[in-house]
Amino acid sequence: MNSRVSFIKLNQEIYFKRSRSKYIENTAIMTSPFAPLSAQEIKLASTIIRDGHDSAVRFKTISHYEAPKEQIVNYLEKNGPAPDRKARVYTYSGEGKKYNSIINLTQQKVEKSEIVPEEIQFPMTDYDQKMAEHVCENHPKILAEVAKCKLPKGAKVIADPWCYGTDDPNETRRLFQCYFYVVFSDHPEANHYANPLPFSPVLDGETFELLWISKLPLEEGFADQDAETQPVENFLSNDYHIEAQESVRSDLKPLQIVQEEGPSFTVAPENKVHWQKWDFTVGWNAREGAVLYDVKFDGRPIFYRVSISDMTVPYADPRPPFHRKQAFDLGDVGFGVTANSLGLGCDCLGHIKYFDGWLANAAGDPVLMKNVVCMHEVDNGIQWKHTNYRTPEISSVVRKRELIIQTVATVANYEYIVMLIFDQAANLRIDIRATGILSTAPSKDGIKLPFATRLGPNVQAPYHQHVFSLRLDPAIDGYKGNSVVYEDVVPFEESDNIPDPYGCGFKVNQTTIKKPGFVDEDVQKGRYIKIVNPNKINPVSLKPVGYRLWHITSQPILMKPNSYNVKRAEFGLHPFWVTKYQDDELFVAGEFTNQSQVDTGLGIWSKRDENVENDDPVLWHTFSLTHIPRPEDFPVMPVDMLSLELKPSGFFEKNPCLDVPRSNQKVNKSVLIKDTCCKI
Amino acid sequence: MNSRVSFIKLNQEIYFKRSRSKYIENTAIMTSPFAPLSAQEIKLASTIIRDGHDSAVRFKTISHYEAPKEQIVNYLEKNGPAPDRKARVYTYSGEGKKYNSIINLTQQKVEKSEIVPEEIQFPMTDYDQKMAEHVCENHPKILAEVAKCKLPKGAKVIADPWCYGTDDPNETRRLFQCYFYVVFSDHPEANHYANPLPFSPVLDGETFELLWISKLPLEEGFADQDAETQPVENFLSNDYHIEAQESVRSDLKPLQIVQEEGPSFTVAPENKVHWQKWDFTVGWNAREGAVLYDVKFDGRPIFYRVSISDMTVPYADPRPPFHRKQAFDLGDVGFGVTANSLGLGCDCLGHIKYFDGWLANAAGDPVLMKNVVCMHEVDNGIQWKHTNYRTPEISSVVRKRELIIQTVATVANYEYIVMLIFDQAANLRIDIRATGILSTAPSKDGIKLPFATRLGPNVQAPYHQHVFSLRLDPAIDGYKGNSVVYEDVVPFEESDNIPDPYGCGFKVNQTTIKKPGFVDEDVQKGRYIKIVNPNKINPVSLKPVGYRLWHITSQPILMKPNSYNVKRAEFGLHPFWVTKYQDDELFVAGEFTNQSQVDTGLGIWSKRDENVENDDPVLWHTFSLTHIPRPEDFPVMPVDMLSLELKPSGFFEKNPCLDVPRSNQKVNKSVLIKDTCCKI
Repeated sequence: MNSRVSFIKLNQEIYFKRSRSKYIENTAIMTSPFAPLSAQEIKLASTIIRDGHDSAVRFKTISHYEAPKEQIVNYLEKNGPAPDRKARVYTYSGEGKKYNSIINLTQQKVEKSEIVPEEIQFPMTDYDQKMAEHVCENHPKILAEVAKCKLPKGAKVIADPWCYGTDDPNETRRLFQCYFYVVFSDHPEANHYANPLPFSPVLDGETFELLWISKLPLEEGFADQDAETQPVENFLSNDYHIEAQESVRSDLKPLQIVQEEGPSFTVAPENKVHWQKWDFTVGWNAREGAVLYDVKFDGRPIFYRVSISDMTVPYADPRPPFHRKQAFDLGDVGFGVTANSLGLGCDCLGHIKYFDGWLANAAGDPVLMKNVVCMHEVDNGIQWKHTNYRTPEISSVVRKRELIIQTVATVANYEYIVMLIFDQAANLRIDIRATGILSTAPSKDGIKLPFATRLGPNVQAPYHQHVFSLRLDPAIDGYKGNSVVYEDVVPFEESDNIPDPYGCGFKVNQTTIKKPGFVDEDVQKGRYIKIVNPNKINPVSLKPVGYRLWHITSQPILMKPNSYNVKRAEFGLHPFWVTKYQDDELFVAGEFTNQSQVDTGLGIWSKRDENVENDDPVLWHTFSLTHIPRPEDFPVMPVDMLSLELKPSGFFEKNPCLDVPRSNQKVNKSVLIKDTCCKI
Repeated sequence: MNSRVSFIKLNQEIYFKRSRSKYIENTAIMTSPFAPLSAQEIKLASTIIRDGHDSAVRFKTISHYEAPKEQIVNYLEKNGPAPDRKARVYTYSGEGKKYNSIINLTQQKVEKSEIVPEEIQFPMTDYDQKMAEHVCENHPKILAEVAKCKLPKGAKVIADPWCYGTDDPNETRRLFQCYFYVVFSDHPEANHYANPLPFSPVLDGETFELLWISKLPLEEGFADQDAETQPVENFLSNDYHIEAQESVRSDLKPLQIVQEEGPSFTVAPENKVHWQKWDFTVGWNAREGAVLYDVKFDGRPIFYRVSISDMTVPYADPRPPFHRKQAFDLGDVGFGVTANSLGLGCDCLGHIKYFDGWLANAAGDPVLMKNVVCMHEVDNGIQWKHTNYRTPEISSVVRKRELIIQTVATVANYEYIVMLIFDQAANLRIDIRATGILSTAPSKDGIKLPFATRLGPNVQAPYHQHVFSLRLDPAIDGYKGNSVVYEDVVPFEESDNIPDPYGCGFKVNQTTIKKPGFVDEDVQKGRYIKIVNPNKINPVSLKPVGYRLWHITSQPILMKPNSYNVKRAEFGLHPFWVTKYQDDELFVAGEFTNQSQVDTGLGIWSKRDENVENDDPVLWHTFSLTHIPRPEDFPVMPVDMLSLELKPSGFFEKNPCLDVPRSNQKVNKSVLIKDTCCKI
């Protein structure tokens, strides 16, 4: 048995010493097709898999596998039978093979089990990370390299294992690149990113053997891979933890959210939420984290499924090995896998309902992810107001109460906060906040790099992009008969034959998307996307009912068209994509992004010759944050915020929140501040 | 004495019967160059004016006139003398002439008094509105026109006077166009916009004589102006007031903001605010409403003046007389003049500090505008967070406390909510929310118009744009030595000679603006604007200190280049403009927009051949909301939200909110919801 096969075996000693503790609760097989996997279901899936393999099976992922949409819609619309519950399981077997299996949990059997080709790599897991860290901390060659840095006394070396961005079409090994940093304290929150070291070992991601050690460039040119690692100087102390701050503001007064009568929502079993005419299920899985299913307002379906499908983060530093920094934070790792356990009074303010999730560890046992989703109400200012100026002493104000479903994912250095926000006017907003710590690179002092921001004498933050994809599976007044259209607002054209003597006229040109493909941004035309149901006409506007996407206008992926960055993530090239719904087409860049060579998601689906008009289209919205780091983003980054919204557009016959109680002091109990001078 | 002269006299009987009550407080002459006019100062200004005129003088506007910037900076930086306080006064004199005067309040004298050319029109005032309404309600010809509509019993006619959009280069008369509507109840909030009538009288805006009555088109073509007005049918009942709703939601639980220790801000006399390292003055005037002056963080100046300079609202309906609907809501009327008196527990939630303002009435007496600005703190989620994934049980979270300065203006049918929002990371966000009621036009039933949304059998909402201009007078670490630059993020070019074997490299191209002019949007290049101080280098980034504008990407003005809409508002053509600072150049489309023929603001200032590099530039940002009305926007519109932000970009050496106390349950007192099922 060669090393590639022998290392498939779970290294229990190393793994469990470093693992989070695990729990098993006595939970049952779920009923709803949208409920996240329960502990029982995970245990069942791993047991069924193990029964079909020898004992050396190692689990990568056990996640919810959704039933066919046709079955689910039949269940929802026609009271049909609840579809069978299923799990998708990625495993390594003792024979050194990789399997992608579908387990039918209801029928307790293997529904499908395929051997995964050698060049396809599963996502990075908790196990991978812990094994890689162990090698980084103990391998003699790596320790020798660290020794060459001649670190001062008290220096503690920390390694971050990264997925290995594709750069070789012939590479079929699973690889991890590791970046090394130093801290000078035992504080658990010491910021190692302030002090990067000038080398990067690459490990075999199956055997955890050290393959080679790359030298990192310290100037604009490439590193000499044969040069000896030099002693490192000019260490920077730049910590975010409170103990490291010279002073702390003393003039911030407490602010609390009080709901004496409790929250306005109810939660039924299997994560079914009801709030202010909205009904939906909060799904959750290893890859996407929180997902919304079967979103309805006042009983009318609007969305079948809403999710962040993936995000890729390519870096602009062209110097090997930094060109390999292109994470797919969902596909390579997972927003569920990296979800934070949210803390009461820290991550969410007010009256908080938490949802837990379950993952599988490498042994196939369920691991509780406690409080990975929080839900609470907020007051977000004014929703609508009008004052008849003839009687200014009377006016009507309705406040904008919102329901926020929030998750936070920590993907190594960065944090992503995803907020799914419902309001009373039937709007669904999605806010994403990027925070956490910049990924840094070492450098000589005094260097200005054209692709990075200097953060200190020996540390640079390379430019990069965060390119997100939002997947919208619409159900505007029906689960199938929807169309995606785009609308351009343009001045009258001569061919319109509309008299316009003063040149002020403009109109809306609507284009229905008939085949899969993409649509580009056009700011001059004010272009936007709508999802309509052409089978249902709004009796007021006399036009099809619909929802409009108030999208994020942003820069496409900046890498060259023939780069791996783009070939792996074609979704980055255009802001709007439409595909025809097919079961199991959820992930924008394909099911397996880790070391992918091509985009097997939209790269394939958007090129099929199919009808999507009035026939189950899926809308994908790409938006990005081109991050030119600021010194202000270090040692931890104040949030950069992205916000998009889905708003009814001729879906209702009038304002859907006219029936919200008017804002009034009796309920809101605001406090008048009379004298504020010199109070502090 | 002809009618044009005789009507200059204040018609006290009609005016005061309809006026808000007035108050005079014993307030003094102010000291700060940024303080809004006090009652005493308004009284003094009108007394000085009246002393120089006969008794027939009628006041249009008395507003704060700012001292020269050089004097103010000398006062701020070098402890120089406080500049003289001044007021700008627009008046009609008994001789039928219009005057634009500057009154030096400190020295109690007229500093300048110019006769205003005939073709220049002052803004529309409270007096104009009341006089016009009186004519609309009483003129026999108008009553005869109403009679032809054969309105059902109980119908009550309501007229909205509008400024008259320019359509004739030879027109020098002051004109108002009036639109007529019907309600069927005595409710003070009955929505008359649901039932527009098919004619529009035009009045002389000085004499208030009826000039003619335009017929309104009811189909796609133009109206026959000689045709008899026909009886109106198909009235629509569509009210927003609570009594008109069939039901009211009963499941919204109260939510209160509690600050047991009070707010975190202090307010010194003359509106000087201190909050979380920020210092600034809340200015206020008739035209702009709230204005920020001398904005500093941690003692360092950032902005000298921040204001919404103007907004124009051109309508897409090409059929005369609707082509004349192009309001300049600040220049023609004023966000101060139309400011709402905000209600405790209605418009602002929490612990609220209010600011009052003072205006002058037509007699030159001060009128108190009570509670026109509210200020309060909110919690806006997470400001930054990081979890070291190795120790997930420990993490640092800082919440995003914000200070919101909010005003609401009611300009006839629409409401605009302006929110100036400071946070602890030295960001200044500006949110604008549009709400209120759509401006409607009558139509025959069953009509679909290519430039309007059908709202009911006899009512349409024409498409339109709200084109805003934000004026930023920067003071990045100094009141004068600033530059405006734009940055494009682009892939490496061949000429860069940077090895980029994998095609992932990109860089920032910075262009300094050296002469007044405009810059266009470039989404593909991710273009953004920065204001930098080239005289001060950030020791961490080694680049000039600066602030970046996270702008609003939006559609330019849609009207044809030779239209009056564009000629009057050149600022609508491009998103970014730079001018050289000159005293008294505050208003983007010029001082007088009412019936203007050309843009006398940027239309002139942006074409001057001056140096703006490192020499007192002013940045103007144009952004728009192209409003294609939805049925959901009626009878009152849920807010459309626009948001832009000014963020430090190499202004600080590190994250400026590291010193904010960490979020913790002891202070935040969140409430864990354990069981939410079936509670309601």
